[in-house]
Amino acid sequence: MEITSLNNERIKYYQKLKNKKYRDIEELFLVEDEHLVNEANKFGYLKEVITSDKDLKYDVPVIYVTDKIMKSLSDQVTSSKVIGVCKKLDKNDIEGNIIVLDNIQDPGNLGTIIRSAVAFNFKTIVMSKETVDIYNPKVIRATEGMLFNINIIKDDLKEFLENLDESYLKVTTDVNEGEDIKKINFKDKRIALVIGNEGSGVSKEVANICDKKVYIKMNKACESLNAGVSASILMYEVNYE
Amino acid sequence: MEITSLNNERIKYYQKLKNKKYRDIEELFLVEDEHLVNEANKFGYLKEVITSDKDLKYDVPVIYVTDKIMKSLSDQVTSSKVIGVCKKLDKNDIEGNIIVLDNIQDPGNLGTIIRSAVAFNFKTIVMSKETVDIYNPKVIRATEGMLFNINIIKDDLKEFLENLDESYLKVTTDVNEGEDIKKINFKDKRIALVIGNEGSGVSKEVANICDKKVYIKMNKACESLNAGVSASILMYEVNYE
Repeated sequence: MEITSLNNERIKYYQKLKNKKYRDIEELFLVEDEHLVNEANKFGYLKEVITSDKDLKYDVPVIYVTDKIMKSLSDQVTSSKVIGVCKKLDKNDIEGNIIVLDNIQDPGNLGTIIRSAVAFNFKTIVMSKETVDIYNPKVIRATEGMLFNINIIKDDLKEFLENLDESYLKVTTDVNEGEDIKKINFKDKRIALVIGNEGSGVSKEVANICDKKVYIKMNKACESLNAGVSASILMYEVNYE
Repeated sequence: MEITSLNNERIKYYQKLKNKKYRDIEELFLVEDEHLVNEANKFGYLKEVITSDKDLKYDVPVIYVTDKIMKSLSDQVTSSKVIGVCKKLDKNDIEGNIIVLDNIQDPGNLGTIIRSAVAFNFKTIVMSKETVDIYNPKVIRATEGMLFNINIIKDDLKEFLENLDESYLKVTTDVNEGEDIKKINFKDKRIALVIGNEGSGVSKEVANICDKKVYIKMNKACESLNAGVSASILMYEVNYE
């Protein structure tokens, strides 16, 4: 199929998916660039492809459009030549090591944490209800396609942690009362690692449920690390055997 | 002093500092929010303060302005109530462990790396000439004020590394031929750690000058980490004794 008009109803429908409200209603979201489209396809989430490149072929329906239409759908300054329409993620098992996000607000941080979670063999991400929308284009871009590769759950964190299987050790960060993460051996344990909000950290009621507090050893001149960096170093240390 | 008009010449002058060209000409840049203004002041870079808060006092000249003027100077959606006018950074010694950045393009990544460098006791940052402008407001915000706390040098990387004191071990990343960073003991050595561009990695001519190649152990499903995360984990491991 080929569409050349910006006023085409189908294009208008896709444009609406740039808005969280419509993503939630339609249970669809957009991904940009070949790498992300291919990742979505590999995991069975790709429904349709929109592209200005007549030579591109996919095993899902492809809609060929003008550069102008691509630009109207893209979230980037330099719009990509392929956009995928994807079904909402539906992998929500609780398995393996879990990273628990208490109100992460920056899209880049959330995307980076998802990317690192896959890198360091965390199988599940649990996000508080106030966490930034996972289908936000900036989140998706920062995941580098790794969001298709992991269980993603949105839940009340207090409830989730209280009901979590007893085989899990619940770990969070505490600069003052924690133990040095490097000196702890996490082998033979399943970990639920709780990361706090960029400004305010882990909420008190969630921290209180945790079994163990850890910190990353660093220079006192620096009050804290970026939340994505901090989460990544902790997952790296938990994962390393 | 109090200014209420957006057309005031002084305000227009400050507005121009949002543009790299004028920052370079005037050798000045803006920082937002109390924490950053205080950090600039602590290290002697703060020249003037612009604020809409009549109660704020500083030991440098303060210009009181309207919220509208604050908004015209701010880079953020919710503009802060204090902006500092700072002198360009001038700490450019070569000392301690060095982080070398080969064409980092994302402002958030550069800021995050500077913040982590201070956290992990790296004393010097060397950036290739193509690296994103350090005075870009997004870079500054992501540093959380740590840019005043470290030597910053812009140079040709090949030349810099070739002329570097022989006491330095030049290290870079290589997923295929590197050694696991966790298994290396960097004690008693000074390190120059080279981090590559987000898409293309370390340029070949720079990689060729390096003495040692390292990697961060991770799941093969994830091709790479975010550049800020990768640099931070490597600095964390180099620093940890």
